[in-house]
Parts: sequence; structure tokens; C-alpha cells
Amino acid sequence: MGKNMKITNGSITTPKGYKAGGISCGTKTKGKKDLSFVVSDIPAVAAGVFTTNEVKAAPVKLTQKHLRNGMLQAIITNSGVANACTGNEGMENALKMAQATKEALDLKKSTLVAVCSTGVIGKQLPIKKIQKGAHELSSKLSRHGGVEAAESIMTTDTHAKHCAVKCKISGKEISIGGIAKGSGMIEPNMATMLSYITTDCAISEKLLRKALQQSVDKSFNCISVDGDMSTNDTVLIMANGSAENKQIAQEDSNYKIFCNALDMVTTYLAKLVVGDGEGATKFVEVNVKGAQSDSDAHDVARAVTRSNLFRVALYGEAPYWGRIMSAIGSSGVLIKEEKLSIQVNGKNIVSNGISDENKVAIMKNQLKKKNIIITIDLNQKKGSACMWMCDLSHGYVAVNV
Amino acid sequence: MGKNMKITNGSITTPKGYKAGGISCGTKTKGKKDLSFVVSDIPAVAAGVFTTNEVKAAPVKLTQKHLRNGMLQAIITNSGVANACTGNEGMENALKMAQATKEALDLKKSTLVAVCSTGVIGKQLPIKKIQKGAHELSSKLSRHGGVEAAESIMTTDTHAKHCAVKCKISGKEISIGGIAKGSGMIEPNMATMLSYITTDCAISEKLLRKALQQSVDKSFNCISVDGDMSTNDTVLIMANGSAENKQIAQEDSNYKIFCNALDMVTTYLAKLVVGDGEGATKFVEVNVKGAQSDSDAHDVARAVTRSNLFRVALYGEAPYWGRIMSAIGSSGVLIKEEKLSIQVNGKNIVSNGISDENKVAIMKNQLKKKNIIITIDLNQKKGSACMWMCDLSHGYVAVNV
Repeated sequence: MGKNMKITNGSITTPKGYKAGGISCGTKTKGKKDLSFVVSDIPAVAAGVFTTNEVKAAPVKLTQKHLRNGMLQAIITNSGVANACTGNEGMENALKMAQATKEALDLKKSTLVAVCSTGVIGKQLPIKKIQKGAHELSSKLSRHGGVEAAESIMTTDTHAKHCAVKCKISGKEISIGGIAKGSGMIEPNMATMLSYITTDCAISEKLLRKALQQSVDKSFNCISVDGDMSTNDTVLIMANGSAENKQIAQEDSNYKIFCNALDMVTTYLAKLVVGDGEGATKFVEVNVKGAQSDSDAHDVARAVTRSNLFRVALYGEAPYWGRIMSAIGSSGVLIKEEKLSIQVNGKNIVSNGISDENKVAIMKNQLKKKNIIITIDLNQKKGSACMWMCDLSHGYVAVNV
Repeated sequence: MGKNMKITNGSITTPKGYKAGGISCGTKTKGKKDLSFVVSDIPAVAAGVFTTNEVKAAPVKLTQKHLRNGMLQAIITNSGVANACTGNEGMENALKMAQATKEALDLKKSTLVAVCSTGVIGKQLPIKKIQKGAHELSSKLSRHGGVEAAESIMTTDTHAKHCAVKCKISGKEISIGGIAKGSGMIEPNMATMLSYITTDCAISEKLLRKALQQSVDKSFNCISVDGDMSTNDTVLIMANGSAENKQIAQEDSNYKIFCNALDMVTTYLAKLVVGDGEGATKFVEVNVKGAQSDSDAHDVARAVTRSNLFRVALYGEAPYWGRIMSAIGSSGVLIKEEKLSIQVNGKNIVSNGISDENKVAIMKNQLKKKNIIITIDLNQKKGSACMWMCDLSHGYVAVNV
């Protein structure tokens, strides 16, 4: 990644030309913030990546439609109710949210509005509260409201997730900022995950779309909390060009710098989502190498991150390396057991498919750490993949009953 | 199923010409039974179905090899240690178990012996204790030892699982008996599951193999406890012909009666395994109908039974029908959300993809029962599938840390 770039404590209002904010409108109980805006001063080039679940929430369908012309100016989000499995009324309510946003912010077209919802599936939105809230919120937007917006999109998240990064493009400083929320139903292909990214960089719609997809594939699509895929996952990016750089219009060195900066933001946020997974007490990186292909490596990583038995072992800090072996074997990928090696935090635990008591003792020690790196070498060819996961704890059960 | 057939409290020693028994040889701690024999008086026609995990335990590899000639006379099983991921030493130990069985039982060939192990992965067997135990056990076999064998193959199971059924084939009464053990790592394609079935029916090897495969597909391959697939799953059947019926050699009405009886045994045992899943407090049947194909229906059923969020909701008796919808949508099967209906214990909960508060209240009531039937109608074509699952509880986490 970029040697001069570093993640800062910023957010979606770090780039120039954005305002944001969040309030409580009554979708959640106890006066918790549940309604937010992210707004660009001018219509911005935009792109999105959405859940692949066949059961898509109304706001997802609407936002996919609005994004067809590649422009957005505002994102409205309510938390508490997902507006999924809500039939015609749900779609009408999503449209009403877009319309209320347009009116509250005095935008030219409601197609410039992305609508997102997160929370319980199957309930209808308290749409009047949201409409009223949108107008109230419009007067409270701020150039420093990004963290407030990050707080407002939380559901079972225990903390707001946000960051920013700066870099130079054609001699101009540009910023990319982002916010995200988790925290159950997190699975490759995204699950109940919302993330909004803003930048003041000028970039063509085509390249923005490409940059976002490749970045999501390396970040939000590489995390697993509980193996469940949600109806509402959405990652959106807006680029409003306020940094006044020469527009990135081809895959040149500037595009690469932009992609690197974007990857830093998405990866940082994706890791925050895993680390704050429901009930999570461990953050685990699973590296697979030596596979016949990257795709094989990904399948193996995914099988390991999905294994409930391994996830419970992590929670219990129990050195059951056999559960990793079993998960690898269940991936559907052809492997040679006798060639397999597994390292935990760089320590050799399995060599040639077997282990011993000394190594198990070493593994037990390493599992006491909060951050753990599992490296699996299939010793076949050069395919590799990396995923991030958390453990399965009593806390996960408790938060979801 | 057969109208005159019924499941009895029998076991693998209900059919004629079998002995069984179990003792403690020291593989498990605290003097728990951990070594068992199932023995036919004469070499029996035999077939098996095994884990599809690429990481296979040594005894699985050995037993698959021994079964190539379609004959078995004895099954030796140790519980406590799985003899998986144990390299060359593991394979030598599996061979030693077969050899010890041959010697203890005075069999002609060690290829007549199936070897099974279940328990912790990655540990070497205490082979001397098992060899010694095999000789001790050989003098303790009994015509009524089936339940003792069922007890000896248990790991985290809370009770022994066994049954038998009788039927008439060509005027002769024949019996089919079975035992099984679960109870984590249970997944379609079997997971840590051992089941042995005996019959005194005379049947050709070819038809026995066919009957077993179709029966496993409808029973043990339709259950899910935690989504993990084990290294050791094995289902074995022996048919010694002691009932002296005319051998079943073609797919006639007698073959159908035999298959029905076998299905009763495997289905009964499979349900016992789910009901005794690690930490299970609920037994849930998931019926999917109206799919484009049986295969689509199976994919949907599997996605629902695998959903951790739905499984935790079952544990909490929380009527989150949206988690079922989301799981259906994540199956990869093309569905029409607005056509979906879901019943819980025969009560309509979702119609045309949506629900309401009254229906949610009804679902909440139904979830208080221990046995729950979820029926999902995709309202497309006639494809259907049925699977059985349990919930995800604090008990599951506790037993696996």
C-alpha cells in the first residue's frame, strides 16, 4: 500500500464538500440515534455493491435502480427496521424516504438519493417518524457530522466505525473517508453490512465502479462473522470532485494510488466490522497459500472461517487444530493431507498433515492472544487468499435469542 | 412406509446371527465404555457410505479398502480418539485394530473387519490398550449386546441410539437393526456420525449397496447440527442371510419392502442424532416444496438448517421469520419473494412473502414446542425436500470450548 498514506480517525466528512449528521427519529427505542444523512454539496459520481441475497430489502432494490445513472447526492439511512420482506408497502416507504430526503435537502431529483435501512426484517417502517425526522435532520447537518452518521447506522455494533485516508493525485491532496456498521449476518458477499465511502477525488464513473468492486472483493467480501447473508447489505461510494484534481479517467498511476487508498479504507472498516462481530472476543486472520488457484484458496479460507466448531474452539482458546484440518477437508477443494502445514501466529503447528503435543502446547499459548493469524499452506501451487473472522461465543447466542 | 412395520426398541443384535458388546479399554477417561464389536456369525454381504471430507481418518481409508470385496464379518470401534490426521502411525494403528479383531474373533481374513474411530482429531490411539481390550471383549460378546455396543460408540451423545424393525420377505420374517452416534459435526454428508446396521435378510451385494445409498440420502444426509463435516463419518450395513429368505436379487416387491424397512431404521436413527445434537433443545423438521426441482428444494432446506441466526432464534423461541426468509434468499436458488409462504406447525406465518403481528404472535406460541415443523412453499413447481435440524444454544458453545 501507499508508503505515505496512513489511516486517520476521520470519516465521510473528511473529504471536501460533504456534510453529514444523525438524530433519533423513533425507529429505535430509548432515543438512540436511528436516522442519518450523508450529503454531497453537488451531485457526485457514484457506485454501489449490494447483497446477492435473492430476498432483497425494498431500499436495496430502489437504490440499485437509482444508481443506474451513476450519480448520487445524498444517502438516507434508518436503523432499527430493515424494511425487508415488507411487500408493496415496503417499496412505497422506501420511495417516501427518497422523496422526503429530496424535499428536506432541496435536491433536484429523488434519483439522486440512496436509501438504506438496517435492523429487524419483516416489520414496516414508522414512515411518518422518518419523514418528520428527515426535515429535522436537514437543519442539523455539519461538515464534522461523519461520526454522528456512523453512530446513527449502528444496530448491535458496540462502537461507531469510521476512518479516512489522504493521498496526492496529480499534485492535489485528495481524501477518502468511510463509515460502516456490522455486526451479525456478516458473511462473504457482505451480509448486514452498510458502508458509505466519500471522496473529493475527481474520477470517471466507470473507474469508480471498477475500483469499488475490486476493493470490496478484497475487504468486505473477505469477512465472516456467522455465515449468514443479509437482505440489506450495501456499500456505496460518492466522488464529488471537490479536490479539483485532473479527473482520473484511465487506469494509470493515479488510478492505482486511488485504488490503494480506497483499499486502505475498505480493509480497515472490514476489519473493524469483524472485530466488533456479535459476541466476538477474537480477531482472526486466515491466510491460505499454496493452493492450485486463488479460488481454491478462497474456498478453503471460507470453509475454515465458517466452521462453527473451530469458531467455538477459538472462543475457548482450545488448540483443536484437527477442527481446522477437518474444515479444510470439507471445503470441496482437492487437498493432499500429508502436504498440509498450519502455522498459528507464525509458529509451526501442523507439518505434513500431523502435529504433536509440544506443538499443541504452543498453539494453546498463541490462542490466548486477541489477535491471531492462521496460515494454511496446501503446498500445491501458488494460489492464495486471506479472510478475517471472529469466534463463536456465548455472547453471540445471547445477543441473537 | 410399510403398514405392518413398526420401529422397536431393538438393535443390531435383533437380527439373527449377530453378537455385540462393549467395554472400557482406556481410550476414554473415567472408565467409560470405549471399545465395541459388532460380529456376524458368518461372513456377511456388506456395504458402506463414508464422509466426503477430503481429510479422511485412517480407519475410514482402511474400511473403504476392506469393503471393496463386499464382505464383512466384524466391526471394531473405539471412541475417544478419532485416529484422524495421524499420518503413517495412524494407518498402522488402524491395521493393528483390524488384525487384533481378526485374532480375537478367530476370523479368516482381516479384510472381513471394518475399523471405526470417533473422538478427538489429531491424537494417536493408545493402540496397546485397544489390542488388549479386543481380546478381553471377544469373550464378552452376547446375542443381546447391541445396546452395549451403542453405548460404547458414544462421544458427546447423551444417550445410546438404537432401534430395529421386522418385516416379511418371501414368507420369512426378517429383521433390520441399527445403532448410531452423533452429535457435533453433524451436517449433510454425515459429519461425525457412525451408524451400523445389521440384517438377517439375504440380499445381493449390489442391491444392498444401492438400498443403503438411497436410504442414507433420505436420512443421515438430511440432518444438520452445526454445519461441520467430520473426518470419520461411516455408515455400514451387514446382511448375513440367517433369516433364510430367498435372496433378494432384483428390484422387485421384496426389494421395496426391504428398502422401506431400512428407511425406517435409518430415518429413526438420523432423527435421534439430531434430537441429541450438542446442546439441542429443539427438534425441527424443515419441509420445502414448490421448488423448480428437488435439488433446488434441498439447497433451500440446507440454507435454512445452516443459518446460525435462525438456529439461535429457535433456541430463544423468537419468532424472527425474517431470518428464515433471509436464509432462503441466500441459498443461491432463484426464488420469487412475493410467492413465498411459510408455515410453522401448520399455521400460516408468511403469505406472499410477508407476515403481520398476529401471525408473528402465533409463531411465537408454536416455537415454545420442542418439536417444530417448518414448511416452506416456493410456489414455483413441484420440487421438494425435507431436512432435520436442531437449535444453536449456549449448550453447544459450552460443550465445544
